[in-house]
Parts: sequence; structure tokens; C-alpha cells
Amino acid sequence: MTDTTSPALRTALAYYQAWTGHDLDRAMSYIADDIVCDAPAGRLQGAAAYRGFMGPFVQILRAAKLIAAFGDDRLAVIIYDTETVPVPSAPGAECLTVADGKIIYSRFVFDRAPFDAARKAPA
Amino acid sequence: MTDTTSPALRTALAYYQAWTGHDLDRAMSYIADDIVCDAPAGRLQGAAAYRGFMGPFVQILRAAKLIAAFGDDRLAVIIYDTETVPVPSAPGAECLTVADGKIIYSRFVFDRAPFDAARKAPA
Repeated sequence: MTDTTSPALRTALAYYQAWTGHDLDRAMSYIADDIVCDAPAGRLQGAAAYRGFMGPFVQILRAAKLIAAFGDDRLAVIIYDTETVPVPSAPGAECLTVADGKIIYSRFVFDRAPFDAARKAPA
Repeated sequence: MTDTTSPALRTALAYYQAWTGHDLDRAMSYIADDIVCDAPAGRLQGAAAYRGFMGPFVQILRAAKLIAAFGDDRLAVIIYDTETVPVPSAPGAECLTVADGKIIYSRFVFDRAPFDAARKAPA
């Protein structure tokens, strides 16, 4: 499952360990300056936009559990469940394209519905 | 990317080709009778419940494109984008546990938000 002979997966797992460990600076060290990320709300372009997307999520993150991780020379996939302050189980999947140890493209899949519902719920 | 030496991935890709080809019966032939699927709306138990989940989706499916596919002996991951009647781009990720050529467990990740929004939009 965690085939670390894949260079892309090594980078993906280092990135995953960093952000799930609440170390956003370290996570961003694996993100290319010109990353393109297709996230549920639309396309993010550049490391600053990506940090603006991940930062708030890392702040509400309580725990994460890796479900699966695979990779080859340039592509890695990680699927995990997260426990967050508003949503007890929020699984996500990331398909990451890696070049020279940096993530240059990300397809990010998660369900926004429970986060939208939590925002609308009475406090 | 499509490492067909993985028996789990062979099953996952056959299942994926079937449902993206609108052949729900053939897709269901890869689903174990007692499948458990953790989907965004909650846990589905059994092939009938799974068919009730996939059937309506296959009906609104216009096209699908595989983004990544990996697997090992028992686990496969597929990530794809779909074009559907209400939502032009609806990516999904499935992490599938396979035994004896049948999918026995599925963790299914996609964003319900655009489907919810399309349902609420004026006709």
C-alpha cells in the first residue's frame, strides 16, 4: 500500500505527514510555487492560494487516518479520513503530480456538503 | 498507472469500465452481495443498497475520464472525473477492497455540494 519505491509517493506522504501533523510550513515545502490545484470549489493557482486553502483546514483538523496510498514515478494518490472540529468524518482523496520532489498539480476530492451544513447549523 | 498485475485493480477497472459504459448489471457483477460502502451520505450495506446508490448516478452520467488507478493484492484506488447532466465536472475517488474478484468494501469520496446546488436551482 505504501510503496515507497515511488518517488512521487514519497513526496506525497511527506506532505501528508506534515499537514496532518499541523506543520503547514513543512507541508508547503513540498508544494511547487506554481502549483495548480483543482479543488471542489474550483481551481487554485500558486502556492499562496494553496496555502490559503489548506491553512484553515489544518486549523480545524483534529486527527487523520491514511486509508490508501499508491504512486509511480510522477503520480501519487492518497486517500484518508479526517476528523475535524465541525465534521467528525471528512474523507478526502488527493491525486498529486510530482516533479523534482514538489507537487506541481493536485486533484483534490472531498465532500463539501457536511462543512456547508455545519456552517448553516445554529450555534 | 494502470498496473494490471494487481488483481484488485483488474476488478476495479472492470467495474469502472462497466458503470461508465452504462452497464449497471455488469458493474454489479463485480460487487459482493454483502458489500459495505462508506459513501458521502453514510454507510450502504448490501448489493441492493449499492445498486440503489449507483443506478441514479449512471442514469445522469454523460462521460467519465480516468485520472489515476492503482492497486495491490487486495486494495485498488480509482480517481476519475465525470460529466453528468446536472454537474459538468464531478470528480470521484473510490478505494475498493477486493476479495475473490468481488468488491467487498468501498470508500467512496465525491463532492455532494454541486449536486445539492443543482437540485435547489430554479428549473
